[in-house]
Amino acid sequence: MNADADSSIDAPRIGTLASGPRDSIADVGDVTVGHATLADGSVQTGVTLIRPHTADVYREPLPAASAVLNGFGKTTGLLQLDELGMLESPIALTNTFAVGTIATAMIRHAVAANSAIGRTSPTLNPLVAECNDGWLNDLHAFAVGEAHYRLAHDAATADFAQGAVGAGRGMSCFELKGGIGSASRRTTDPRWIVGALVLANFGRLAQLTIAGLPIGRKLANASRDAHAGDGSIIVVLAVDAPLSHRQLRRLAFRAGAGIARTGANFAHGSGDIAIAFATAERIARRQRNAATRTTIGDDALDPLFDAAAEATEQAIIHALFAAETVEGRDGQVRTSITERLPDWRTRWPPQ
Amino acid sequence: MNADADSSIDAPRIGTLASGPRDSIADVGDVTVGHATLADGSVQTGVTLIRPHTADVYREPLPAASAVLNGFGKTTGLLQLDELGMLESPIALTNTFAVGTIATAMIRHAVAANSAIGRTSPTLNPLVAECNDGWLNDLHAFAVGEAHYRLAHDAATADFAQGAVGAGRGMSCFELKGGIGSASRRTTDPRWIVGALVLANFGRLAQLTIAGLPIGRKLANASRDAHAGDGSIIVVLAVDAPLSHRQLRRLAFRAGAGIARTGANFAHGSGDIAIAFATAERIARRQRNAATRTTIGDDALDPLFDAAAEATEQAIIHALFAAETVEGRDGQVRTSITERLPDWRTRWPPQ
Amino acid sequence: MNADADSSIDAPRIGTLASGPRDSIADVGDVTVGHATLADGSVQTGVTLIRPHTADVYREPLPAASAVLNGFGKTTGLLQLDELGMLESPIALTNTFAVGTIATAMIRHAVAANSAIGRTSPTLNPLVAECNDGWLNDLHAFAVGEAHYRLAHDAATADFAQGAVGAGRGMSCFELKGGIGSASRRTTDPRWIVGALVLANFGRLAQLTIAGLPIGRKLANASRDAHAGDGSIIVVLAVDAPLSHRQLRRLAFRAGAGIARTGANFAHGSGDIAIAFATAERIARRQRNAATRTTIGDDALDPLFDAAAEATEQAIIHALFAAETVEGRDGQVRTSITERLPDWRTRWPPQ
Amino acid sequence: MNADADSSIDAPRIGTLASGPRDSIADVGDVTVGHATLADGSVQTGVTLIRPHTADVYREPLPAASAVLNGFGKTTGLLQLDELGMLESPIALTNTFAVGTIATAMIRHAVAANSAIGRTSPTLNPLVAECNDGWLNDLHAFAVGEAHYRLAHDAATADFAQGAVGAGRGMSCFELKGGIGSASRRTTDPRWIVGALVLANFGRLAQLTIAGLPIGRKLANASRDAHAGDGSIIVVLAVDAPLSHRQLRRLAFRAGAGIARTGANFAHGSGDIAIAFATAERIARRQRNAATRTTIGDDALDPLFDAAAEATEQAIIHALFAAETVEGRDGQVRTSITERLPDWRTRWPPQ
Repeated sequence: MNADADSSIDAPRIGTLASGPRDSIADVGDVTVGHATLADGSVQTGVTLIRPHTADVYREPLPAASAVLNGFGKTTGLLQLDELGMLESPIALTNTFAVGTIATAMIRHAVAANSAIGRTSPTLNPLVAECNDGWLNDLHAFAVGEAHYRLAHDAATADFAQGAVGAGRGMSCFELKGGIGSASRRTTDPRWIVGALVLANFGRLAQLTIAGLPIGRKLANASRDAHAGDGSIIVVLAVDAPLSHRQLRRLAFRAGAGIARTGANFAHGSGDIAIAFATAERIARRQRNAATRTTIGDDALDPLFDAAAEATEQAIIHALFAAETVEGRDGQVRTSITERLPDWRTRWPPQ
Repeated sequence: MNADADSSIDAPRIGTLASGPRDSIADVGDVTVGHATLADGSVQTGVTLIRPHTADVYREPLPAASAVLNGFGKTTGLLQLDELGMLESPIALTNTFAVGTIATAMIRHAVAANSAIGRTSPTLNPLVAECNDGWLNDLHAFAVGEAHYRLAHDAATADFAQGAVGAGRGMSCFELKGGIGSASRRTTDPRWIVGALVLANFGRLAQLTIAGLPIGRKLANASRDAHAGDGSIIVVLAVDAPLSHRQLRRLAFRAGAGIARTGANFAHGSGDIAIAFATAERIARRQRNAATRTTIGDDALDPLFDAAAEATEQAIIHALFAAETVEGRDGQVRTSITERLPDWRTRWPPQ
Repeated sequence: MNADADSSIDAPRIGTLASGPRDSIADVGDVTVGHATLADGSVQTGVTLIRPHTADVYREPLPAASAVLNGFGKTTGLLQLDELGMLESPIALTNTFAVGTIATAMIRHAVAANSAIGRTSPTLNPLVAECNDGWLNDLHAFAVGEAHYRLAHDAATADFAQGAVGAGRGMSCFELKGGIGSASRRTTDPRWIVGALVLANFGRLAQLTIAGLPIGRKLANASRDAHAGDGSIIVVLAVDAPLSHRQLRRLAFRAGAGIARTGANFAHGSGDIAIAFATAERIARRQRNAATRTTIGDDALDPLFDAAAEATEQAIIHALFAAETVEGRDGQVRTSITERLPDWRTRWPPQ
Repeated sequence: MNADADSSIDAPRIGTLASGPRDSIADVGDVTVGHATLADGSVQTGVTLIRPHTADVYREPLPAASAVLNGFGKTTGLLQLDELGMLESPIALTNTFAVGTIATAMIRHAVAANSAIGRTSPTLNPLVAECNDGWLNDLHAFAVGEAHYRLAHDAATADFAQGAVGAGRGMSCFELKGGIGSASRRTTDPRWIVGALVLANFGRLAQLTIAGLPIGRKLANASRDAHAGDGSIIVVLAVDAPLSHRQLRRLAFRAGAGIARTGANFAHGSGDIAIAFATAERIARRQRNAATRTTIGDDALDPLFDAAAEATEQAIIHALFAAETVEGRDGQVRTSITERLPDWRTRWPPQ
């Protein structure tokens, strides 16, 4: 039992590291998360926004990097993120067909706050990641509008909901109900924290593994969806240690270890993408002369790598256990794991 | 003099290879190009669409790859393009703020034609590249709408205009008027053709080099724009040889040699991106069993590499010489090179 | 129990897929493996050679690709492997200080068989991967010589030993004795096979996980090595399906899922590298004109991805369970897992 | 005329930027260069060593990165260089068959100076790049030995020779005599310097372009070598500005612009690789806690990019003009450009 673990999500606990007070990405710096949820009949979708800090990210960017584990996805913004090593917008998650709309909303919002954008200042690089919620959600309705960006933005809080909310509303995970999950893990000596937030929409039920137990083998039917596994997972990592772009790229890659431990093998049709940012220091715009920045040495990365992998795995489990059963398009249903496994508490040892 | 060179663009000729009959990307397979141009006061912008063939690209995708020469750009669609080695949409070019709108329009257009998209078939990966035309165009007007996608699509033709049209309407190149340019170059033994189309919005005037002559040194003022060079260039290459994804990636990279010879050094602020596709064979969707495909050996690539570099350089020169002077936002003007250099024909040897 | 599983390594069984008759990489095509083992006091090292087929690989290269999971390593040959998508030498594994010597030996051996190399034919690209066996082996002795390459080459057989042999002689894995391990997994419909061979020299004992059971937590001491985890793992995958370079790169990446499931998080100091080759068709040298090749569609990759991940995980477990306790330099000892866990058969269900 | 240009190489001058006092890589920090030259009948080869500073690079590493422009090459050491962003050895250049021998020599030399290597300290990552000098040099003689590494190391000086010396002894460039060339270019406001050293062994004569003039078209015979262009070029860039790994990677890429301007298109058979390191600050080994480092902002990179491209192009021209005619294996001869173009001073304007 970790004295400081206080997750609001009742779920099996992953690994051995301690969590922060919320066991969520909001334990890192002043990261907040907001949702706009659309849940009405065949429209089951939404937007989730990760705000890396409470100020204007365009004016005060952060070091960031990505790792593309499987590039079958439509995330926009990674090119520039990795060339400049810089996050200059919130990170939006939504459905596959809404990427363009949310990117436009993000630009419009930033321009309203910074009229110099695209005039005397560089244009904004909107970072919008997606998963395909088309099994529950009627993608053809193009239900997400620009207004939902603003709703998610204004709703951002450190105490955000998980499961079938925001961008996670219509997502499926291991053929069960998926969605938004989050977790955090601490290092000691020095004391840093890594937070993860996932949009979990991936996996075949037969492969589901929780805390090492291949529970999916028991749950899976012989007849599975033709498109099961054709999902995606987006992992957003936040860390309060001062990491460089190169180090953040290495950190982001370790999200893959967390994903793998849930049983998936980065399926062909699954866009598996990790994005990491560091909250310790902001990047000065228009800096030309030499200035000092803080970083840690690579020899200190291993505890952060362990924290990133474990937080990612835990965040996926949180997404599953926080999600309620949802009925969507054409009467199709994704059942909550807690409904499929009502006795789950007996299967995993108490934490 | 190349017997088959018949470019409609009156400009210095680059290199030594022969061109196709149009000296444009439309010499390759049945590639067509369409523009939607917005030219009204402070709105000087548009959309250009490269249609890789005249059928439905979602249903009949082509092998494709990209090379990111400098990733300071907001192009969307490259992640999946390179993971799958497949182009499944037309290639749209537009201004930086319109990427989301055009991506959405592209999805909506594809869904209208293929109702299975996002249901029983995979979602569309829209490929939309951009440059920042904010010096002439009022980006804050968000003037490009979804309808302009359809206009550009329906206008696609093998005999398309170059210069200050479509996405090129508001672009600047070497502090002169830039925009859309195209060219083609042939190989012999075997006989293939490579076509290039550029959206040219990059370069500092002092560095402009045409056919090896550093003409920019003469033209440049001492006082240059603070943001000169903060442009971008998108290069689209089409080839009729049957190349694999790996080979197309190598081909795309050679666009950089053509860019470099115009004098630019891939400036920090310039999103320099090349995309290459092959028209020889279409990719079978849902192919599971082994099937045969045609490719050439890498030992045959050099003539194609030479053609790609030369066609790219020529396409940039075509963009400059085809562009008319444009006045845009706040009375700002970009002057045509033919206006700045009325005696240009005396400076380069007859072709 | 898989009817055709007939591994000679007595070890917990991973996953659910069937193996080939040898449960080793030698189940794929006519792959063979040879060892040269040096085991004498403070010299505990060697060379392992994977021969992708029994003919001359320089003359008859195979499609191949790599995935660099963590680049803290000194493997040589990957640059060209991925540019050309081609394996043209056997794959040698050895200790970190012997890479140069073995690369030279490989060149000399190829030149002896093909006097045109470096004259009228291209030079050979030797592929030599390594792990650091310096805890047991006296690296400063530079004990591996060119002759050991030839010994390993001539010893190649489909029925090769695993554990503390060849390049694996001095390797440590999860602070236990590691080394060479191999496994294979089959797909059905269509029926392909993926084989894995690992040089396992990575991991911290506290993280060791076998078939989902975090056994390392029980085994680990409070006081661990300062450099535990600073190992590396090389994974070589062979597949008999006709995959392109791009597809092989995707396949190689899935080795990472297998590694992650053993408990490691791609530690900073661990050079984790995967190399995949396809035995179905050989590459024609000096091919210039278009020719047909066979490939499968990406939609058929998932069973191969599952097989790659599972074979990799099993190969690591085989390396642990096949390895005997070894005493090396300065009386340092790495204990076999079977010695540390004599009752291991009771911990994992019978297979 | 640049007041401070004082190159000892009499050659056409490239571009407009000022050089450092030596117009060589030795203008940067205390970089020195040493050669070991083997010139005896059919043996025409050698080793060139770039020492990034005069102390022990293993103990005092520098930030570094690479850009692989065309990966048809056998350079060893780039994997780790880019994962860690760190150069921890001198940079050796030699012939293709000698990479392994020189890597071993480099390890042995470092171990002699640091007995902890491979014991309590990490193993050395030797950085050895190569070109194929097999047209003039009898590669099959394997003439380069470990002793030549030490000779090159001990000969390192700021006033090093260029042309047909060291690793450049047997190299061909544009079907003329190539080899080692170097140059430097300065930025102003702030005042930094970028130095380039090339091992130039690439290019087809018909494509040779000097300061924009396509002189090769005049010089080339109709009947060219079947393997002309199958060379390689290695570019080493040193900069005294404090750049991060990410920034150095961007800088290294700009070497490609300099290569392209000499007329080459990164031919299939040419391993074109650039390596950049920064001399401003050394990396602390075993740093775990946060520490400050100096970097400049990306907005200040453009002058450095221009300097890198121009220094690279000039270094190639220096290699050509410094090289003497060499006769090697089987009476084959590579003629100096100054012999082919005795009137060259009349073709390029005075500098």
